Amino acid sequence: MDLKEYIRTIPDFPKPGIQFRDITPLLADPAAFSAAIQEMAAPFMDRGIAYVAAVEARGFIFGSAIAHALKAGFIPLRKKGKLPHQTIAVAYGLEYGQDAIEVHLDAVKRGDKVLLVDDLLATGGTIAAACELMEKVGAEISGLSFLIELSDLPGREKIKPYPFHVVITY
Amino acid sequence: MDLKEYIRTIPDFPKPGIQFRDITPLLADPAAFSAAIQEMAAPFMDRGIAYVAAVEARGFIFGSAIAHALKAGFIPLRKKGKLPHQTIAVAYGLEYGQDAIEVHLDAVKRGDKVLLVDDLLATGGTIAAACELMEKVGAEISGLSFLIELSDLPGREKIKPYPFHVVITY
Repeated sequence: MDLKEYIRTIPDFPKPGIQFRDITPLLADPAAFSAAIQEMAAPFMDRGIAYVAAVEARGFIFGSAIAHALKAGFIPLRKKGKLPHQTIAVAYGLEYGQDAIEVHLDAVKRGDKVLLVDDLLATGGTIAAACELMEKVGAEISGLSFLIELSDLPGREKIKPYPFHVVITY
Repeated sequence: MDLKEYIRTIPDFPKPGIQFRDITPLLADPAAFSAAIQEMAAPFMDRGIAYVAAVEARGFIFGSAIAHALKAGFIPLRKKGKLPHQTIAVAYGLEYGQDAIEVHLDAVKRGDKVLLVDDLLATGGTIAAACELMEKVGAEISGLSFLIELSDLPGREKIKPYPFHVVITY
């Protein structure tokens, strides 16, 4: 199955010059969505992954389903102020200004193996912050898995220390 | 399995007097998370559900996994400005001010059966807007499924026209 056929390119979104890779046709097709999950999870089967962690919101779509496929728990990484218990935060730079993501301090036990997933590897800012966050709470990062990599952006430079897997490259 | 044991109550979050039902311990436990998905999906098996739709962000965690369980497609309902193609929006009232959710105009074909899911039924404002939105694009709403209902709030009044299912009640 060529998963690229289920991704629609929208020119000039969210601003002129950007080719937005729209995954909604893939999500809408049960066979394509299932194949995407399997391909994202495959290298991490039988690797003792205790948790899959993902950043809201699109990351949750893949993180939840991959956690299921790996029989692992799911850890939501959220924007500031959304998680109710004691949290730790990591800030990261955006094109304009800063944002931060948080996780519960008790999300893992020291040394638990965690897989981080997201739909898209672009500049790598968000996923690098997610890695830093999970290491701060004591996780061992077993790897990173993405549906799409935009290879003209320097995302993979930011995640060099970690094993990572990409299903579709543009 | 008593799923309530996996839900943690955090007093006074996000503000004094609110008892926040924290689902992160349930998500972290693969058996409990899997049981929750099965129980949320069970009444809608073999009902010809074409799509599961859910509102970001926590709704995506359950929507994605339930779509998988039902072998249905997944439709993300998003805050304004996030979806790249032609959209339609429905506004709804919040405690302070208004918010809106959007869906792609081509998300369904007229008459496609859709299940809406969310983690929490509280005031019902968001899910009622989601129902209105899906009907505007031509969907037939087969039902609604929630992990948790807060029964001291009038949420179920707002969704009376639809068959709905709740796993845990407080």
